[in-house]
Amino acid sequence: MQKMVLNVNGVNQVLIVDPETSLADVLRQQLYLTGTKVSCNDGHCGACSVIVDSKLTLACVTKVKRVPQGAEVITIEGIGSPEKMHPLQLAMVAYGAAQCGYCTPGMVVSAKALLDSNPNPSREEVRTWLTRHHNACRCTGYKPIVDGIMAAAKVMRGEMAREELEYKLPADGKIWGGNYPRPTAVAKATGTLDFGQDLGLKMPPGTLQLALVQAKVPHANILSIDTSEAEQMPGVFKVVTHKDVKGKNRITGLITFPTNKGDGWDRPILCDTKVYQRGDALAIVCADTIEQAKAAAEKVKVELEELPAYMSAPAAMAEDAIEIHPGTPNVYFEQKIVKGPDTKPIMETAPFVVQDNFYLQRQPHLTIESDMGFAYYDEEGRLTIHSKSIGLFLHLYMIAPGLGVEPDKLRLVQNPAGGTFGYKFSPTLEALLGAACIATQRPVYLEYDYQQFMQYTGKRSPFFMDMKMAADKDGKILAMETDYSVDHGPYSEFGDLLTLRGAQYMGAGYNIPSIRGLGRTVCTNHVWGSAFRSYGSPQAFLASESLVDELAEKVGMDPLEFRYINVYRPGSTTPTGQDPEVYSLPEMLDKLRPLYKEAKQKAARESTPENMKGVGVTIGIYGCGLDGVDGAEAAVELTKDGVTIYNTWQDHGQGADMGTLGTAHEALRPLGITPDKIKLVMNDTGLAPNSGPSGGSRSQVMTGNAIKNGCEQLIAHMRKPDGSFLTYDEMVEEKIPTKYTGKWAASMNSNCDENGQGRPFAIYMYGAFMAEVDVNTRTGKTTVEGFTVMADIGKINNKLVVDGQIYGGVAQGIGLALSEDFEDYDKHSTMLGAGIPFAKDIPDKFDIYYFENARENGPFGAAGVGELPLTSPHVAVINAIYNATGVRIRHLPAYPEKVLAGLKAGQADLQLA
Amino acid sequence: MQKMVLNVNGVNQVLIVDPETSLADVLRQQLYLTGTKVSCNDGHCGACSVIVDSKLTLACVTKVKRVPQGAEVITIEGIGSPEKMHPLQLAMVAYGAAQCGYCTPGMVVSAKALLDSNPNPSREEVRTWLTRHHNACRCTGYKPIVDGIMAAAKVMRGEMAREELEYKLPADGKIWGGNYPRPTAVAKATGTLDFGQDLGLKMPPGTLQLALVQAKVPHANILSIDTSEAEQMPGVFKVVTHKDVKGKNRITGLITFPTNKGDGWDRPILCDTKVYQRGDALAIVCADTIEQAKAAAEKVKVELEELPAYMSAPAAMAEDAIEIHPGTPNVYFEQKIVKGPDTKPIMETAPFVVQDNFYLQRQPHLTIESDMGFAYYDEEGRLTIHSKSIGLFLHLYMIAPGLGVEPDKLRLVQNPAGGTFGYKFSPTLEALLGAACIATQRPVYLEYDYQQFMQYTGKRSPFFMDMKMAADKDGKILAMETDYSVDHGPYSEFGDLLTLRGAQYMGAGYNIPSIRGLGRTVCTNHVWGSAFRSYGSPQAFLASESLVDELAEKVGMDPLEFRYINVYRPGSTTPTGQDPEVYSLPEMLDKLRPLYKEAKQKAARESTPENMKGVGVTIGIYGCGLDGVDGAEAAVELTKDGVTIYNTWQDHGQGADMGTLGTAHEALRPLGITPDKIKLVMNDTGLAPNSGPSGGSRSQVMTGNAIKNGCEQLIAHMRKPDGSFLTYDEMVEEKIPTKYTGKWAASMNSNCDENGQGRPFAIYMYGAFMAEVDVNTRTGKTTVEGFTVMADIGKINNKLVVDGQIYGGVAQGIGLALSEDFEDYDKHSTMLGAGIPFAKDIPDKFDIYYFENARENGPFGAAGVGELPLTSPHVAVINAIYNATGVRIRHLPAYPEKVLAGLKAGQADLQLA
Repeated sequence: MQKMVLNVNGVNQVLIVDPETSLADVLRQQLYLTGTKVSCNDGHCGACSVIVDSKLTLACVTKVKRVPQGAEVITIEGIGSPEKMHPLQLAMVAYGAAQCGYCTPGMVVSAKALLDSNPNPSREEVRTWLTRHHNACRCTGYKPIVDGIMAAAKVMRGEMAREELEYKLPADGKIWGGNYPRPTAVAKATGTLDFGQDLGLKMPPGTLQLALVQAKVPHANILSIDTSEAEQMPGVFKVVTHKDVKGKNRITGLITFPTNKGDGWDRPILCDTKVYQRGDALAIVCADTIEQAKAAAEKVKVELEELPAYMSAPAAMAEDAIEIHPGTPNVYFEQKIVKGPDTKPIMETAPFVVQDNFYLQRQPHLTIESDMGFAYYDEEGRLTIHSKSIGLFLHLYMIAPGLGVEPDKLRLVQNPAGGTFGYKFSPTLEALLGAACIATQRPVYLEYDYQQFMQYTGKRSPFFMDMKMAADKDGKILAMETDYSVDHGPYSEFGDLLTLRGAQYMGAGYNIPSIRGLGRTVCTNHVWGSAFRSYGSPQAFLASESLVDELAEKVGMDPLEFRYINVYRPGSTTPTGQDPEVYSLPEMLDKLRPLYKEAKQKAARESTPENMKGVGVTIGIYGCGLDGVDGAEAAVELTKDGVTIYNTWQDHGQGADMGTLGTAHEALRPLGITPDKIKLVMNDTGLAPNSGPSGGSRSQVMTGNAIKNGCEQLIAHMRKPDGSFLTYDEMVEEKIPTKYTGKWAASMNSNCDENGQGRPFAIYMYGAFMAEVDVNTRTGKTTVEGFTVMADIGKINNKLVVDGQIYGGVAQGIGLALSEDFEDYDKHSTMLGAGIPFAKDIPDKFDIYYFENARENGPFGAAGVGELPLTSPHVAVINAIYNATGVRIRHLPAYPEKVLAGLKAGQADLQLA
Repeated sequence: MQKMVLNVNGVNQVLIVDPETSLADVLRQQLYLTGTKVSCNDGHCGACSVIVDSKLTLACVTKVKRVPQGAEVITIEGIGSPEKMHPLQLAMVAYGAAQCGYCTPGMVVSAKALLDSNPNPSREEVRTWLTRHHNACRCTGYKPIVDGIMAAAKVMRGEMAREELEYKLPADGKIWGGNYPRPTAVAKATGTLDFGQDLGLKMPPGTLQLALVQAKVPHANILSIDTSEAEQMPGVFKVVTHKDVKGKNRITGLITFPTNKGDGWDRPILCDTKVYQRGDALAIVCADTIEQAKAAAEKVKVELEELPAYMSAPAAMAEDAIEIHPGTPNVYFEQKIVKGPDTKPIMETAPFVVQDNFYLQRQPHLTIESDMGFAYYDEEGRLTIHSKSIGLFLHLYMIAPGLGVEPDKLRLVQNPAGGTFGYKFSPTLEALLGAACIATQRPVYLEYDYQQFMQYTGKRSPFFMDMKMAADKDGKILAMETDYSVDHGPYSEFGDLLTLRGAQYMGAGYNIPSIRGLGRTVCTNHVWGSAFRSYGSPQAFLASESLVDELAEKVGMDPLEFRYINVYRPGSTTPTGQDPEVYSLPEMLDKLRPLYKEAKQKAARESTPENMKGVGVTIGIYGCGLDGVDGAEAAVELTKDGVTIYNTWQDHGQGADMGTLGTAHEALRPLGITPDKIKLVMNDTGLAPNSGPSGGSRSQVMTGNAIKNGCEQLIAHMRKPDGSFLTYDEMVEEKIPTKYTGKWAASMNSNCDENGQGRPFAIYMYGAFMAEVDVNTRTGKTTVEGFTVMADIGKINNKLVVDGQIYGGVAQGIGLALSEDFEDYDKHSTMLGAGIPFAKDIPDKFDIYYFENARENGPFGAAGVGELPLTSPHVAVINAIYNATGVRIRHLPAYPEKVLAGLKAGQADLQLA
């Protein structure tokens, strides 16, 4: 140990430290300065940025012994507080630069260090600084952050008034459609919002720290688990195995399609008979300290009989493959698509037919925050589990029988989440926490390090796709045939639904009269498939938006014009046979056309043999909601001080707080209430009603409508005959209830049938994407230099939120196109290894055009937003690479070596010709 | 557990709490808001004051379940920060209201709540508020705090500029003699200074928490200690007993007088053969959490053979008493006093002779902070022990052999101490920490709760005194005879020295030509005697300053005039036969005379049969230093940025930081250096040289002289022939050393001989005290309504510091006179039970007059200060009670029931007469 005196945020702090400890751990775990976040713990993400003696420092990789005695350390807490924000923090709020907010403290600290050394940086200098210092953001696509830093720099240089960064309520008091900063923005920008890891540090005394014993092989029979030595280790309270789990020890996906050959009870809480994937939990060590728990976990002895591992759908479909879940075939679900007349004769006669195969990889979510949670018995004796769950009630029912707990004795709470992008649509550690809490009857805390998080939480499921398309002589699409296999990993939850998504989105956006297809869900031993933003559609659009380009080329039409003549117009139907509710695609393409032409000209002008430039376009569609009759509840209560809204609009970071506030404020406008009088009680099944999970861009529509309904009920009960309103005191006096549960259901919808036909969604979002790329022909590296998005997401609730969603979704699409994958457990288990994009990987030239077509069934005309930007932006990049180089990447990501190989093959073709 | 959302300092904080936990523990241990201090944990002291929903709340006695959901909690951290101080914080700094600083956050929070509800309070309203809300301060006597609150209120009302509270360096740059705020003041006023308990919370992971197994009886033979069951308890790492102590397992007082019948090796670290006092440590349980340690401590089985308990000196001196330390008599040291001719013939012939007996009680130190510390091995493998030690090098050598550690492998560090007033002149838990750290090889933390602190740290040793005095017909004192027994508890450390103090201070201040006396140190089973401010003199002066009043009455003189003719003048000698170095007492009494007359007139005017008023005076003297040739070292180093001073001027709270800075700045004035360029590295034996312990008002003289000497050496080496100075770079370039060790020794002194004669101190402090009291004859309760202090402490280093020392010392004297005791283990183990004075117990009419007679041997003419104000103020109160009522209290404290009994006896006498 070493005695150190550090000046931390202006205060001299005496510290006794293990010299080998990281500065980040000292700051967080010894000083509880939890504004400094630690996630990757490997210097990849910049969330732990602090300033040491004027130098920007990654605290997680800086051993405290390297910090000089007496050093001045500045953390986010030293830059500003909620009541005295630094201009950088104010700007982050004003520009919506904090979405999930997990990277924000590090961003602010990094920007502070930049501006300390360069008070007048260019945008490019800001982007270079953030890239060089590894300040990763997964939500914003970086643009709002750069905007914020530029504005703060102006304020600090005295070129702009600080007040210009402060939100002003417009004269009419309306916040709907404006730039009201999300309620959590200030806490995020100042590092005062506690995420799960921070809350974990602040747990009550006696909380046990958990460490998992995990499988090191992907497929095996379990012969024995011996915990006796581990139980004797210092500080160990108990080692929990499947024997301690009181219920069925299985997590169920709840709803399984009738034709699914499995029963959905395939995912163990703690493995009992078999290991199905690397990382599967075999035991949980519960100890006083995490060091003790980890040391004891090493002492749990597991005897396994290794089995053949099927690491992809084709491998698991092989003739000789054994059943991963004995009794259930590895191909456990099939989805047909039958729309219109048979495709076979059309394919045989059509003038233009193209066919190709595509593979979309196992995209990792790459949230900056890893996964963590805790559990305890609450004051009513309910087993209470806090996690990053974005489906609180969903998960409650998914894990209750496995744990052997009655649903009414189970309570789920969402902690502020440092991004999920869908991976938390699946339970991750909730049931493990529950099992440990039940077995120990003590509060328990479990955190995955970044490697565990990468390896033991769900990923986007890879699709292996074959597709064929035919067009007539005018370029009208006549028919489509599809065949695809979904590698869903070992656990079936929602796998059938995902397979259906293929049917819903392959070819979406175009009026295709005739479709035949077959998708199948395949059980494998690679990491399990969970939801990911735009669920199923990036896979579907990779095939159809690539093949449309191929077909356009075959027809001899410009890709944009080919799309233009085929997109939905009145009379068109979707691949599921549904009538679109609005027709925005033609006007979008009209708007895009001149920009596209300009981009093409610029590319032609600037291309060189070493740097080939190109432009690609795609369209993208996504439905808002779960399939069929989706709905939600939200409660609205008049209080002495205002109105309280209760819901479970879970927050990935997307802005559920703002979604709720904006919708409620608009609905409550008859009362003339200001936004600060609306209190939000969210994301706790013990306090708020079931609004359904936060996925599929459903919340603004479903929960938004439920909020609107609740507010309308309240207002109706408050309204006096003269049109004025009763006060709270009058309501109480007259014994009129003050709390109303708003409800809404999409009763106009129907589920898709066995042929994939139906009206699954009341509202769709529509978009078009244009990517401008530069391909370095020496390295094969693609750089996206510009991006344009056309978006119809209905009427906009909050501009900062939707801008942020679109920038961020497209950025994930760029990563999907070029760098991201989780295939190799060794190479891809870190943020850098898995290919997270940094600031310089996302273009600064990045424009969004909105087409605010009001939706009849959306609250105040709104649709959703989150999924749209990740439907097909990656294919726009892929199409642009083709446009630049003639190289078509069919198996993503388009790593430089693949592009280079394509370029070489093209040259070979050229030489052969 | 309960999920709570609290708005803490403006930040919404989600918390999982055990509903039975105190709010204070939640704030401190779960949120690490360590500005809120917890010591008494019983609602007695107000250090934990916070504001909950606008209401001042004692957080330590408020269960968190009583705090409403969503409540707004304001802690000291929410009131202001070092960079943005609230006017209250600024005022605490400006008025020197933070001495040790431990109560300061609570005071600021309490005052904030007061001013929120009453922006314009009177001084009396402030004093009533602080009293009603139990805001105890042990350092300041409350006056500087009330001054600060009044000034802050003015600023907040806009009647005074905030800038008036900010220190301004005078034009000549001199801070010596001024009001420069002590360097730690801002951190204390903002709650950002970490005390031991706070540092304990911030220890590195893996730190073991210690719980003691303590004796429940005061005297016993140990038959067996069985730790086997405890070692099996959850989380227990090891149970340490005497068997694990590698050395002699004894703490030694180091220097034992040659005539001491003991060898000084009587205090066990962990009891092995015997228990000597209640609370003695038998075993240390080392566990992961304090709850685990405490639970396991209950399981240690101790078999004892109880022995007769000797709870006072007379009991232990009884014929049939067994030896507490077998082989050493219970009366183990005797000190004779032989000055001048034999007293016997004088007593037989003198016209006026008085004799009486007195008892000064076991005064508890009543620091607001209890006792705590921690230990670890440092980066050089040294066993490093942090505690509240005010004698770092002293304690190092006192515990090293007991622990079996070579002194150069031992390092002691002082944590900021929330008051010691001398109890930390003894080691308390240092050796226990060392033993546990050695046995576990892990960092360890030990904290005494307030009850443990009261029962198991040393107290002021009671004196049982008989005294006889004779005067001639003119009132000149001719002779004094004394006989006194010191109840020193079971451990001998410094007991002989304390007994000598009786010889040095009984009758001090007066020229008494003839003295005979005998004092004895007695071993008992009550709590051990340790140092307490003004060590030995409150006991001595209780006898002599009471008896002088009795003698004056007998002679028929006014007590002030009687003193006036007897005090030191040139030619006088002290009781040890020394010539005083200055003669300030006559001028003090001259100054006091008109005030005394005025007070007497006022008392006479205002007295009623129910409220009798009176005035009492005393003089007080105390030497600066340890006996004989005392000395100190301090290092002075020129650095690139200024000058660094290294010393071990340990801080009880008295202001060692300011003492060092003020002295160094004055010494460095030739260099023209500003105070902010002087860095202090203090109170760490690994970093700073031995300045000796902080006690006996020695530091300003000894360490001050060493600092001055070091600075002079540096300046001499920096001086160029032209009188200008070399820069740091020039010194380095010319290879002139930049660091110098300053040394000073009081070589003019000599130890007292077996007759108590010698020149023990180079410098004395002189004072006179006047108390004005009101005695309620119905209840017997005495209230001190006014206090006047005449003080000659030489030249003043810092006015804020010396004012604070005098206010605080006198306040402890008022407590000593009226309410404080530690006799009954059950009744007196809490702050309230032991009689701590609150604001209303200390007068607001409280004046100090300084007589700045420069001391030849003091740095820049300074003496010390700390002990003077507690020499005899209590006797002034006692004399005033007598003056008011005719009741003389000889056995302190003057509890109301004693005064009432005296009044009744007086009336009986009256009726008899």
